Amino acid sequence: MKISNRVLDMNFSPIRKLVPLAHNAEKKGIKVYSLNIGQPNVVTPDAFFEGLAKYDEKIVKYSDSQGIDILIDSFIKSYKKWDIELSKDEILITHGGSEAILFALMAICDPGDEVLIPEPFYSNYNSFAKIACAKVVPFLTTIENGFHLPPKEEIVKKITDKTRCILISNPVNPTGTIYTYDELKMLAEIAQEYDLYIISDEVYRQFVYDNIAYTSFMYMHDMLDRIILVDSISKHYSACGARIGLVASKNTKLIKHILKLCQSRLCVSTIEQCAAANLINTLDSYIEDVNTKYKSRRNLMYDYLKRIPGVVCDKPGGAFYMLVKLPVDNTEKFAEWLLTDYSYDNMTIMIAPASGFYATEDLGKNEVRLSFCTNIEDIENGMIVLTHAIEAYNSLEK
Amino acid sequence: MKISNRVLDMNFSPIRKLVPLAHNAEKKGIKVYSLNIGQPNVVTPDAFFEGLAKYDEKIVKYSDSQGIDILIDSFIKSYKKWDIELSKDEILITHGGSEAILFALMAICDPGDEVLIPEPFYSNYNSFAKIACAKVVPFLTTIENGFHLPPKEEIVKKITDKTRCILISNPVNPTGTIYTYDELKMLAEIAQEYDLYIISDEVYRQFVYDNIAYTSFMYMHDMLDRIILVDSISKHYSACGARIGLVASKNTKLIKHILKLCQSRLCVSTIEQCAAANLINTLDSYIEDVNTKYKSRRNLMYDYLKRIPGVVCDKPGGAFYMLVKLPVDNTEKFAEWLLTDYSYDNMTIMIAPASGFYATEDLGKNEVRLSFCTNIEDIENGMIVLTHAIEAYNSLEK
Ligand SMILES: Cc1ncc(COP(=O)(O)O)c(C=O)c1O
Ligand SMILES: Cc1ncc(COP(=O)(O)O)c(C=O)c1O
Repeated sequence: MKISNRVLDMNFSPIRKLVPLAHNAEKKGIKVYSLNIGQPNVVTPDAFFEGLAKYDEKIVKYSDSQGIDILIDSFIKSYKKWDIELSKDEILITHGGSEAILFALMAICDPGDEVLIPEPFYSNYNSFAKIACAKVVPFLTTIENGFHLPPKEEIVKKITDKTRCILISNPVNPTGTIYTYDELKMLAEIAQEYDLYIISDEVYRQFVYDNIAYTSFMYMHDMLDRIILVDSISKHYSACGARIGLVASKNTKLIKHILKLCQSRLCVSTIEQCAAANLINTLDSYIEDVNTKYKSRRNLMYDYLKRIPGVVCDKPGGAFYMLVKLPVDNTEKFAEWLLTDYSYDNMTIMIAPASGFYATEDLGKNEVRLSFCTNIEDIENGMIVLTHAIEAYNSLEK
Repeated sequence: MKISNRVLDMNFSPIRKLVPLAHNAEKKGIKVYSLNIGQPNVVTPDAFFEGLAKYDEKIVKYSDSQGIDILIDSFIKSYKKWDIELSKDEILITHGGSEAILFALMAICDPGDEVLIPEPFYSNYNSFAKIACAKVVPFLTTIENGFHLPPKEEIVKKITDKTRCILISNPVNPTGTIYTYDELKMLAEIAQEYDLYIISDEVYRQFVYDNIAYTSFMYMHDMLDRIILVDSISKHYSACGARIGLVASKNTKLIKHILKLCQSRLCVSTIEQCAAANLINTLDSYIEDVNTKYKSRRNLMYDYLKRIPGVVCDKPGGAFYMLVKLPVDNTEKFAEWLLTDYSYDNMTIMIAPASGFYATEDLGKNEVRLSFCTNIEDIENGMIVLTHAIEAYNSLEK
């Protein structure tokens, strides 16, 4: 019986593939530090749980397909602090940023249409494009250039009459790069010249370190009808399991069509929306604390990495990831070996091989993504393991 | 800028279109009884809220993409009572039955593939097919035949080499019909002869009245690899806003591919899953009580309808809907008129014109779907309004 090419072409989550190996290592009594995940270990603010407890309806009803008023209002208010003006008919609440990206792609792409994405990129972008039957067309950013964007001509030469949009995350998962104003301006120009949308995934917007200037596409006032904003409470408030995100645009015609997609799945969890509405805006100090935490974790991780011979990495300006080049032949094999054959002082690590973040075959083979959203001791122990593991791996007879 | 044909082709929810008109009527001081909705007024069981309160994690983390173990286990246990044997690798938790249907279609259909559906059908089936770029091919069931299936030859003549599956709900939304064993057997035979899947949407499975025998496709043991079960707690436990459903199949190869779709959106709300896990299996008496309620509401509605001259309707055996033929020229106009121009004793009603449940143009023009999941007084008042309204509408100069 037929299985669709759509799903046959999709990959299993590259991160989750290593999980059974980690379980086996744990069964052998080895402590496994997870440096591969995007699940922060920071506690979810009390305001979320208070919002949850406040819910006192007797019937858990469907809510409006576009999202509940109080949540949309609280997002509108929070964007004001960022000088982003949005109104009610410009926002739709979604099941996380994930659904927001998928809906955006579905609303602008028909089968065969193309989506430009700087690689490496968040691996589920590939899945969302496949689900929408669209084609990912990557353009390369490199570790040597801090994963900043290539010159305009490199990008535009990938554009065809099927290209519909440029999809970026900023700050970038998996590199932690923050695009400069000039970079965004260049993409904005391309979008205008070639009549493209820009899907701006800003789920890490609040994680910017070292006073780097952060620019949102929502500040490009002369072209806001092309901009589709994706956001989520998952990372900002360490509430990944709540599944609350949004898609927003000043292009209300587009938003109206995306509303049809929202209506088809009826609504987003009513109770989680209430809890989320209680969360946003109460919490400037929370965000500051978390940023301080992540920054010191980043510094720690970076300091260790710098001391490992052969490692190439940049100090990322945002998010909680680093994309790092390791002096090993193949990071997929290395990641497996760490879980199946190695331990240092009864500890090992789980890391994300970077090939999963590239659309172009054979790229990222000696890079890994390391995440610093776990606690500081785990990071420290993980870095100690990594330092010794690289040496051990490279002295193996192969 | 291009908007995809996918979303341009989709319709806005036919039910929700009338909502602004109802708001206006309410502003004029008219009481509007909603006989158009699928949102039960029955309270959600305490067990759900207890499950919610029990959640005591400090971080609302992503959970496994396939769903949390305790919830899957509780579904497995509940199916045992129905003599349906399912195991862990055969079930994926989804954002409601909605996502389950969408994922099933996506996993078996590529763009242009065809989905056979008896019409009238749940209008979002149309949306899900459009989202998956598949084509709905309807075959007709009629009010005169109690919306039971047509003979086999009527169905098979719609099959082409693009047909991938038959999608049904049983009990049927919008008709309340319960298919007999022989009808399901016929569909099963067709599926085997033409190499099709069957997507069996059983979200109303527990609402069967008058001791009618209920058959699930999950009892067709010689072809379970073709059966995709869709289920949800929305209607069973009046927990629509929780967004918890599942897709299940003995075809574990297919389930593995659907898991990729689940992984792309990371997970279903962690807390709602915990609450739902606490709900299922605690509640045989709840289900019985609710069934008794719906049955008496149905009887009341039916008794009123029978007395209105020119109304054609069958007493439905399940779910909480009736599809009724009214002696009016156009039920879309009638439904609008009820909200904009009519009131009886300062009351009016909101009804769902049936054209939204047909894929074939011009069908259902004098039918409406009435829902009896609201409380008994609303139904009684609604029926009084309907009786008078039909007379008033037909004596208008037009
Ligand atoms: C860049 C990026 N976008 C979107 C998401 C989706 O997150 P969520 O659906 O939890 O909002 C993630 C999650 O890791 C991400 O890294
Ligand atoms: C026949 C049918 N299937 C599926 C659904 C989807 O329900 P949910 O996504 O809330 O499980 C509905 C909702 O009304 C329905 O009537």
